[in-house]
Amino acid sequence: MTTIDDSRHYCTLINVFAVAPEKCQELFAALQHATETVMSKLPGYVSANLHVSDDQKTVTNYAQWATLADYQNVMKDPGAQQHMQQAAALAISFSPVLYNKIWTHSSQG
Amino acid sequence: MTTIDDSRHYCTLINVFAVAPEKCQELFAALQHATETVMSKLPGYVSANLHVSDDQKTVTNYAQWATLADYQNVMKDPGAQQHMQQAAALAISFSPVLYNKIWTHSSQG
Repeated sequence: MTTIDDSRHYCTLINVFAVAPEKCQELFAALQHATETVMSKLPGYVSANLHVSDDQKTVTNYAQWATLADYQNVMKDPGAQQHMQQAAALAISFSPVLYNKIWTHSSQG
Repeated sequence: MTTIDDSRHYCTLINVFAVAPEKCQELFAALQHATETVMSKLPGYVSANLHVSDDQKTVTNYAQWATLADYQNVMKDPGAQQHMQQAAALAISFSPVLYNKIWTHSSQG
């Protein structure tokens, strides 16, 4: 389980991958494998949350890192780079965006 | 606080708004107001989570609805439509995508 909590000030990355529906499952599996074997072992990792769209044309990763510096170190890690290139090759395009300011509103208060 | 929990099977909407940095704050405020006054009053509302990118060029809403039918009813609601049009007018573009399949991985187990 992951929590979105604006008081924690995580570095949040939302990466939207556009994908051909016939490659959707392969991309999902590649991102899952990269999370389990590489990303989650790196310092500052908090969570990764893979979302597959109902039309199989989009896979979105909602990822949290403890700090921006942690995320920047991931981008320099050779193992992480290799996995990101594999994912990129399966996608039509990808659009990673970093977020710092988060406002949360919930029916559960 | 919001939880991303793959066992709950919420209908998740991730809506990525591209925005001019000078209109970013106004768009954020409009989405915040719409959440508090309209969206959160509608049946099936679970959460809305507004994310402002570090470069002020993207505002992303991570929203959860209890079921797909609840979300479809929101799309038909005149009050919700009015607020969505206001937000759309402040953005360069927006890209709402619905997700059903979610896989969550967290350092907190």
